[in-house]
Amino acid sequence: MTKAKTTTHIRDLIAQMTLEEKAGLCSGLDFWNTKGIERLGIPSVMVTDGPHGLRKQQGSADHLGLHNSVPATCFPSAAGLASTWDRDLITQVGEALGAECQAENVAVLLGPGNNIKRSPLNGRNFEYFSEDPFLASELAASHVRGVQSQGVGTSLKHFAANNQEHRRMSIDAVIDERTLREIYLASFEGTVKQSQPWSVMCSYNQVNGEFASESEKLLTKVLRDEWGFEGFVVSDWGAVNERVKALQAGLELEMPASNGIGDAKIVAAVNSGELPVETLDKAVERLLSFVFKSVESRKENASFDKERHHALARQVARESMVLLRNEGGILPLAKSGTIAIIGEFAKKPRYQGGGSSHVNPTKLDDAFAEMQAVAGASASFLYAQGYELESDEVNEHLLKEAQDIAGQADAAVLFLGLPDRYESEGYDRSHLSLPASHKALIDAVAEVQGKVIVVLSNGSPVEMPWLSKTKAVLEGYLGGQAFGGAVADLLFGVVSPSGKLAETFPQKLSDNPSFLNFPGEGDRVEYKEGLFVGYRYYDKKEIEPLFPFGFGLSYTSFEYSNLLLNKRSVQDTETVEVTVTVKNTGTVAGKETVQLYVSDVESSVIRPLQELKGFTKIALQPGEAQEVTFTLDKRSFAYYDVKLGDWRVESGEFTVAVAASSRDVRLTAPLEVISTTKTAANYHRNTTVGDLLANPLTADKAKHYSSIFGLESAMEDNPEMFLAMMKYMPLRALVNFGQGKYTEENLADDLRELNALAGQE
Amino acid sequence: MTKAKTTTHIRDLIAQMTLEEKAGLCSGLDFWNTKGIERLGIPSVMVTDGPHGLRKQQGSADHLGLHNSVPATCFPSAAGLASTWDRDLITQVGEALGAECQAENVAVLLGPGNNIKRSPLNGRNFEYFSEDPFLASELAASHVRGVQSQGVGTSLKHFAANNQEHRRMSIDAVIDERTLREIYLASFEGTVKQSQPWSVMCSYNQVNGEFASESEKLLTKVLRDEWGFEGFVVSDWGAVNERVKALQAGLELEMPASNGIGDAKIVAAVNSGELPVETLDKAVERLLSFVFKSVESRKENASFDKERHHALARQVARESMVLLRNEGGILPLAKSGTIAIIGEFAKKPRYQGGGSSHVNPTKLDDAFAEMQAVAGASASFLYAQGYELESDEVNEHLLKEAQDIAGQADAAVLFLGLPDRYESEGYDRSHLSLPASHKALIDAVAEVQGKVIVVLSNGSPVEMPWLSKTKAVLEGYLGGQAFGGAVADLLFGVVSPSGKLAETFPQKLSDNPSFLNFPGEGDRVEYKEGLFVGYRYYDKKEIEPLFPFGFGLSYTSFEYSNLLLNKRSVQDTETVEVTVTVKNTGTVAGKETVQLYVSDVESSVIRPLQELKGFTKIALQPGEAQEVTFTLDKRSFAYYDVKLGDWRVESGEFTVAVAASSRDVRLTAPLEVISTTKTAANYHRNTTVGDLLANPLTADKAKHYSSIFGLESAMEDNPEMFLAMMKYMPLRALVNFGQGKYTEENLADDLRELNALAGQE
Repeated sequence: MTKAKTTTHIRDLIAQMTLEEKAGLCSGLDFWNTKGIERLGIPSVMVTDGPHGLRKQQGSADHLGLHNSVPATCFPSAAGLASTWDRDLITQVGEALGAECQAENVAVLLGPGNNIKRSPLNGRNFEYFSEDPFLASELAASHVRGVQSQGVGTSLKHFAANNQEHRRMSIDAVIDERTLREIYLASFEGTVKQSQPWSVMCSYNQVNGEFASESEKLLTKVLRDEWGFEGFVVSDWGAVNERVKALQAGLELEMPASNGIGDAKIVAAVNSGELPVETLDKAVERLLSFVFKSVESRKENASFDKERHHALARQVARESMVLLRNEGGILPLAKSGTIAIIGEFAKKPRYQGGGSSHVNPTKLDDAFAEMQAVAGASASFLYAQGYELESDEVNEHLLKEAQDIAGQADAAVLFLGLPDRYESEGYDRSHLSLPASHKALIDAVAEVQGKVIVVLSNGSPVEMPWLSKTKAVLEGYLGGQAFGGAVADLLFGVVSPSGKLAETFPQKLSDNPSFLNFPGEGDRVEYKEGLFVGYRYYDKKEIEPLFPFGFGLSYTSFEYSNLLLNKRSVQDTETVEVTVTVKNTGTVAGKETVQLYVSDVESSVIRPLQELKGFTKIALQPGEAQEVTFTLDKRSFAYYDVKLGDWRVESGEFTVAVAASSRDVRLTAPLEVISTTKTAANYHRNTTVGDLLANPLTADKAKHYSSIFGLESAMEDNPEMFLAMMKYMPLRALVNFGQGKYTEENLADDLRELNALAGQE
Repeated sequence: MTKAKTTTHIRDLIAQMTLEEKAGLCSGLDFWNTKGIERLGIPSVMVTDGPHGLRKQQGSADHLGLHNSVPATCFPSAAGLASTWDRDLITQVGEALGAECQAENVAVLLGPGNNIKRSPLNGRNFEYFSEDPFLASELAASHVRGVQSQGVGTSLKHFAANNQEHRRMSIDAVIDERTLREIYLASFEGTVKQSQPWSVMCSYNQVNGEFASESEKLLTKVLRDEWGFEGFVVSDWGAVNERVKALQAGLELEMPASNGIGDAKIVAAVNSGELPVETLDKAVERLLSFVFKSVESRKENASFDKERHHALARQVARESMVLLRNEGGILPLAKSGTIAIIGEFAKKPRYQGGGSSHVNPTKLDDAFAEMQAVAGASASFLYAQGYELESDEVNEHLLKEAQDIAGQADAAVLFLGLPDRYESEGYDRSHLSLPASHKALIDAVAEVQGKVIVVLSNGSPVEMPWLSKTKAVLEGYLGGQAFGGAVADLLFGVVSPSGKLAETFPQKLSDNPSFLNFPGEGDRVEYKEGLFVGYRYYDKKEIEPLFPFGFGLSYTSFEYSNLLLNKRSVQDTETVEVTVTVKNTGTVAGKETVQLYVSDVESSVIRPLQELKGFTKIALQPGEAQEVTFTLDKRSFAYYDVKLGDWRVESGEFTVAVAASSRDVRLTAPLEVISTTKTAANYHRNTTVGDLLANPLTADKAKHYSSIFGLESAMEDNPEMFLAMMKYMPLRALVNFGQGKYTEENLADDLRELNALAGQE
C-alpha cells in the first residue's frame, strides 16, 4: 500500500466515523491499548512500557512497575547505554527490543527517555542518557532507529523539561528560552530530526506556566512546524489536564483510558463550536496513520532468541561500565589466587530501576557465579554478604564476616551501590551517599586488605568520600540482566573497559549547578543555572569534579596525533571536516571514544567554555592506529538567538579540540567561522557610543561625539575613566551633558543617519 | 518656623510661580546648584559630591572626579567604614562631614552610596558598604544621621540595583521580586526608614526593563508609599532619559542643568494635558521644602577643625582595617630592631578611589614617616620602592633593591594593593589579581626574609595565591588621608585591630555567585544567583572562602557565654531580646564585633542558611566582660512573600546564633516563631493530595483518595513509590486514573468542600 493510498483510505474512514467515534479514538481502550472500531476495520493496538526492555502486562495494569509483566531481555538502562558512547551498539539494542515487541505483538515501545540530567538527585536519571544534549540526542536517535527498523514504534519521552520526579505532575519548570532551546529541547530535537520516532510522549509537568500536555508551542510549533515531526503525541499516563486544550495544542492520544470522560469533553467542544472538527479530524488521521502503519509492520509469529539477546545484553553491559579508578593497574585481576567477593549485590544484583521501566528478565546473571566461570579453576573465591539489602544499618556481624574473608584473600571485590528504594521513578533522592552499611564495609575491609576493588550499581552519581581507601572503582550503573557476566569479563580483562561518563560526578552535591534551585519552591522550579548544566558549569566555575564528563579508564592507552581541519575559515553555511589519528599505544586491545569539543574564543553572549559537538568510538588492537573523521556544521558553532528566534553563529575564531574527556583535551586547532545571518541595525536613544564605535560602519561618526562633552582635556588626567565613560555613554546623554550644544532634534537626525549607515551592510 | 507655616508659605509661592518657573526648578542651574527665583526669594543651593569627604568644585565641573576641588578631610571610603561595624563611629564621621559642608555652604552631600556588592569586580565597590543588606542599611543610616545632624542633607544613592559600572547608563538589571526586596532594595529600605535622608539619588541603570529614573514603582510606590520617604529624588548626573516620564515616576530634580531642554519638555507636557499640573506642583513643593529647610539649617560663618577631623580620620582608619592573617602572632611588631618598608604605597598611599568621590585631602599621612614616629628611636627603618606605581611590569632593579634591604632587616612590611587605574567609578575590574609587579615583590622578599607582612590598599577583594608566603596580612582598604598613621598604630600595637570584613573574600573569582552572569549580555544582566549573594552563597554552596564575611583577627581573644533569649516562643508581632556575655580573655585591650545570625530550620521556600540580623561592637579591657543585647522582630525571621506582597514569617523553629564571623558561630539557641499572617486556601484541580494531607484541616478527607486509584495493593510491594505517587498526585488525576469512579463533577464538589474546610481556620 503506498502512502497516498493509505491517506485516501484513512480520510475515507474518517468520513464514515461519527463524532463520538472520532473523539473516542483520542483516548485509550484501557491501560495499554488503543481503541478499535470493529465496523470500520480499525484494530486496537498495544503500546507498552520500556525502554531498555519490554514491560508488557497481561494481568493488572499500572504505570509504575508495580505489577508483573511477561519475561523480556533487560538491557542496561539509558544511563549505562549512554556510557557506551556507541551509536551502533545502541541501535543493535533497539533492534533486539523491536524484535521482542514483534514477538509480543506490541506496536509501540514507550521510550526512549531523553530528558537532560539537570540534577543527580532526579530519581529517574537512570532512564535518561546524559547531561549533554548532543550526546543524548545522538544516542536516543540510535535507539529509535533500532527499534523502528523492526516495524515497531517508539515514543520519545518525556517532552519536555521533566527533569525531576518531585511534584512531577504539578511542577512548573521555569526556563529561559535560550536554555530551553540549547539544553532541554535540544536532546529531543536531534532525536526527532534524525530518527523520526512514531510518537512523542508529552510530560506531566508544566513548562513556563503551561502544562506540556497543553503547550501548542511545544507540541505543534516546535515539534511539528520547526522539527518536522510526523508522528502522534501521546500523553504520559495521566498527564492530561484539560482534554480539549490538549487536543488543540497537538496531543492526539490520551492514556490511559479516560472512561469516556475525555471523549465526552471533545464531543461537547465540537458541538459547542469551541473545537473545530478539522482539528479533531487531523488528530484522528494521525492516529489512524499510526495504527495502520503498525498493522502493516506486524510480523506474524515473530519470536526472538533469548540467548542471543542475553549475549547482546552482556556485550552492552561490558561497554557501559566505566572504570573510574585503577591505582597501580590493580585491574585486570589475575585468574589465580584467592579473591574475596563481598556484598549481597554480587549474588542479588541491582541491575535495573524502579517504575515503568521495570522489566521481568528472561534470565539473571549472578556476578559471583560469573566471576568463577570466567576465572576458571586456578582462582578461588570467598563470599560474604557484607550488608543487608533491606536496611541501611550497619550489621556488625556481617562486617566482621567480610573482614575475615577479606583478610584471607589476595584482593577484595566489593559489590556496592544504591538499593532499589534509593532511586526510582516517582521520587527523587535527597543526598548522594551510599547507604551507611555500604560505606562501613569499605572502611572495615580496607583495614585488613590493601587491594579493595569497588563495583558500583547505581543509576546516577554517588559521592565517594571513601575513594582513597580503594584501589579501583568500576561504575556498573544499572547493568541489566547480564550485569554479572559483564563485570566478570571486565574485572578479569576478557575485554578492556571502554565506557566513559555521560555525566559529571561531583565531589559533593552542593557542587551541582541546580543545587540552589532543586527541586524548587512549591510548584515552581526555576532553572537559574541556565545553560550551565553538567560540565558546562563545572568548566566555567572552575570546580574540580570527582570524575569529569567523558572520563573513563582503559587497560590500554591511546595517543592522538595529526589533528587536521580541511578548511581554515568557513561560512556558517558550509561544513568542515576534522580528522585526527588515534593509536592504541598499550599492550591489549581496547576501544576509545574520541570526543570533539568546540569553543567560541570570544563572544558577545554568555557561552559555555566548550561544548561537545562530535564523538566516535573505535576499536584498536595494540599498536593499531586509525583516522577518525568528524563533520561540523553551523549548529556546531551556533547559539540560539532568542531575538532572532533561530540559531546563530557569531563571526570569529573558534577552537576545535579533540579530547579523551572533557578535562583531557589532547589536540586543538583554530577555525574562523563567518556568520551569514544578516540583521538590521536598530540604534536608539540609549545605544551607547561604544556600540557605535565597535561597528566599522558607524565608528567614524561616533568619534566626533567625545567633543560634545567638553571633557576631552580630562583624557590626559585619567584616560581609563574617560574612555570607559565615552564607551558606556548612551546617545541621549549627549543631550544631558551637551550644555545645549546638542538637542533632541540633533539626536533624532543622528539616529536616522546612524541607522542608515549601519543598514548599508 | 513651624512645618505648617512653611507648607503654607511654599504653597503660596507655588501659586505665584509661572509654569516655566515651576518646570525650571525641576533641573539644576549648572553642575552643582539648584535654580533660584529671585523675584520670589527662592535661593539657589549647592549639592556636592562625597560621600567620605567633600568634593566641592569651584572651577571646571564634572561628575567623575577629574577636575579639582577644595580641600576637605578624606575619610576611609565606605568599604573601610563598613569594616568598622561601628554605628556610632560612622555617625561621628557623618557629623564631621556635615560640619565641613556647613563650612563650605553645601546644602547636600551626595551620598552615602549603599548598593550591594554583588560582584567583587564592580569598580565602585569601594564606595559601597557591604554584601549584606542589614549591615549596609544600619551603617548607611548612621552616616546619614551624622551628616543630617549638622543641618546638611544627604542623598542616598544609587537607587537601585546599580551594581556594576559596565554599561551602567544603559544596562537592565533583571532581578526577581523577592531578591530585589530581600537584597537590593533592603539596604536602602533600612536606611530610609531609620534616618530619612533629605534626598535619594536614582541610578543610571534600568531595573527589570525600566530606567530607575522612570520607575514609578521604585520612586513612588516603594520609596514613598511603602517606606515613607519624605524627601526629594535627584537623578544621578545624566540619568534622566525621558524627563516627563521621570517626573511622573517621582523624580523631582534633574541634574546637572538641562539647559532648558528638560524644562521645555515639562512645560509642553503640561500644556498638552499629558502631565497634570498637580504632579508638577507636588514636585516643586518637595523641592522648595528642601531648599527652605536647607536655608533654615544654614550655619553662617561655620568652620571646622582640620586637625581634629584628621585625628578622627586616623581613628576611623584604625578601626576599618582588617587583620586577615597573623601567623605565630608576628604582629604587633616590637618597636625595636630593623624593619624594611617596601613598596611605593608606603610613601604615596592609595587611600581613596577614582571618580565622583575623589577628595582633595587637607593633609596626607606617609606611612613610612608615621611608622618611624610611632616606633620611636629604638627601631630603625629601611625603605625600598619595590615597584613602579604607573606600571604592572616587574622592575628587576627595584626587586633586587627590595630583596637587599629585606635581607638586612628583622622583618619586612610590604605596602601593596591596587593602583588607581585598577578600580574606579566608570568601569569594572576583569580579574582579582594584584599587579604582577606586586606579586613578584612578595616572591622576591619571601626568598630572603621569613617575616613578611603585607599591608593592602584596595577597595574590593583580591585573590591571594601568595598568602602562604606571608606571615601577616592587614587589609587596609582605601583608608583615607590618615591611612599611614592608622597602619603605624596597628602594626605596632598602639591599638589592636578590630575591623571585620563586610564582604566575603573568595579564593578565586569564579567562586563568586554572580560569576556566570556578570556583567551580563549587551544591555541585560540577569541576577540569576537570586538571594544567594555573598555569604548566603558561599554558605549554601559549601564553598570555603579565602576569608569569610564578618572575619577579622585581633591581638586579643574573646570568649562568648550565657546566650539567653527572653522567650522560647513568640508570635511574629512580638520582639525577642537576646543577650550574650563577651569577655576579653587576652592580655591587651581590644574591640569585638558580636554578630547575630538567624536561620530558619525548615522552610517551604528557598532560604539562605543564615542571615545577619544583629551586630554590636564593644570595647573590652583585658579580663573585662560585658553583656550584649539584641532585639529581634518579625523582619529578623521573615522572607518577602511575592504573592502576598509583604514580609512573612513561616511558623516553626528558628536558630539564633551569636558569632565572631559568619563561619565562627560561638553559641546557638532555638526559638519558635508563630506567624500571624492569615491567607485563604486556594485549592484547585492541580493541588496535590500531599498538600491536602499536609494541612490538618483537609488531611482526613484527602486520606480517602488513595482508594480511588485501585493501587492500594501495591502499597506492600513498593511503599516508597506508592506514597510518593499519592503525595504528588494532583486532584484532577483522580479523574484520569479513577476508571470512571471519580468524575469532573466529583472533583468540583470536592474542591468546594476542601476550600471550605481550609477556610475555617
